[in-house]
Amino acid sequence: EIVAAAERLLAARDPAARPLAGMKMLVTSGPTHEPIDPVRYIANRSSGKQGHAIARAAAAAGAAVTLISGPVTLADPPCVTVVHVESARDMLAAVEAALPVDVAVFAAAVADWRVASAGAQKIKKGAAGTPQLDLVENPDILATVARRTSGRPPLVVGFAAETEHVVDNARKKLARKGCDWIVANDVSAESGVMGGDRNTVHVVTRDGVDSWPIQSKEEVAQALVARMAATLKDRG
Amino acid sequence: EIVAAAERLLAARDPAARPLAGMKMLVTSGPTHEPIDPVRYIANRSSGKQGHAIARAAAAAGAAVTLISGPVTLADPPCVTVVHVESARDMLAAVEAALPVDVAVFAAAVADWRVASAGAQKIKKGAAGTPQLDLVENPDILATVARRTSGRPPLVVGFAAETEHVVDNARKKLARKGCDWIVANDVSAESGVMGGDRNTVHVVTRDGVDSWPIQSKEEVAQALVARMAATLKDRG
Repeated sequence: EIVAAAERLLAARDPAARPLAGMKMLVTSGPTHEPIDPVRYIANRSSGKQGHAIARAAAAAGAAVTLISGPVTLADPPCVTVVHVESARDMLAAVEAALPVDVAVFAAAVADWRVASAGAQKIKKGAAGTPQLDLVENPDILATVARRTSGRPPLVVGFAAETEHVVDNARKKLARKGCDWIVANDVSAESGVMGGDRNTVHVVTRDGVDSWPIQSKEEVAQALVARMAATLKDRG
Repeated sequence: EIVAAAERLLAARDPAARPLAGMKMLVTSGPTHEPIDPVRYIANRSSGKQGHAIARAAAAAGAAVTLISGPVTLADPPCVTVVHVESARDMLAAVEAALPVDVAVFAAAVADWRVASAGAQKIKKGAAGTPQLDLVENPDILATVARRTSGRPPLVVGFAAETEHVVDNARKKLARKGCDWIVANDVSAESGVMGGDRNTVHVVTRDGVDSWPIQSKEEVAQALVARMAATLKDRG
């Protein structure tokens, strides 16, 4: 903590170390929980480690960061405004409240579906046989922001957690969502990425694919933040 | 930690403070996670705090405790054998492996249902419209153990998390499952029990109902362990 504080103080004196100074960024992180009834829910596996690391790295690089986090067991990163949410709909509302920003990073594993009519009371077993869960699609937070006609952030970054055809699926997602980058990773059980501390990512843009070596999630965060700073500088 | 260790040492000298010495106990705790596909799952809200507190209190009272825990963020309690599981089926297998015991306490919030055929690959959005989750009933761990014809533990304790008609539902559950006690609590959002540190429980047996005042989960655990010791002594 003392070392981190000293690093921040030193960084504050050196503008090159604060390449995102003056920038506003929003980052989503963690899973969402979609209620089935008061005691049950549908969730995605997501520790939030990668999203939280990006928020921390961006704040260290001088950005004013709003982190919108689903339920995680991680501490709130220092020097970051943290908004805690549960469901995808809550997350979208918090994202829209955080706009406008210069960079929006959607690292959360948002549930694609929610239960059509979540019960107000606990569903009893046996009462009416096995219940059937009718699902409805959740709002697509990434596409909603990337396709805004006014107030679209200059840089919109999505994530893709894939278990097969990682880069192919990421290319399709980039086109489908209308975002600027997709950071894709392999989350198959064999990869050990899910819940782990290391990550192997592919940064997919309209110009091509950068496949990075396996690194810690902190190193991935720092490399992404450096690339964001370079991109915004080129455009600015 | 030092205080706790000293308390354990003192307790070891005083047989009255170790009323479960020589007894074997199993405790289940936490939620279960039932996979939908490699990245999604259905879960119950359960912090595991009450079950873990019971395991800790029983070990302090001299019992040899096996704690079978679903995914929680709590540390393993000291002086307890901990088995980590994910799904209801894994939990049942671990429970059966821990038998025979003198007392079995089922404090876990086991998912009543699982998805009939969990996908081996991530289900893609949009590919085939909104997916429908066909659920099948999970094994009923409490009833399976309480209704054993051979090797049934002398004392089988179930839990009931209810959002309405707490005691009535607990009485019905006691009869339906064939267990000796149901520890029932109100987990409606207003109660603050879920994830919180305090609990208001009703101990329902064939002889009646004891409704205890609101206490910390540690106090509830100690009171339950004292009552278990008294019951086993009466029977022995």
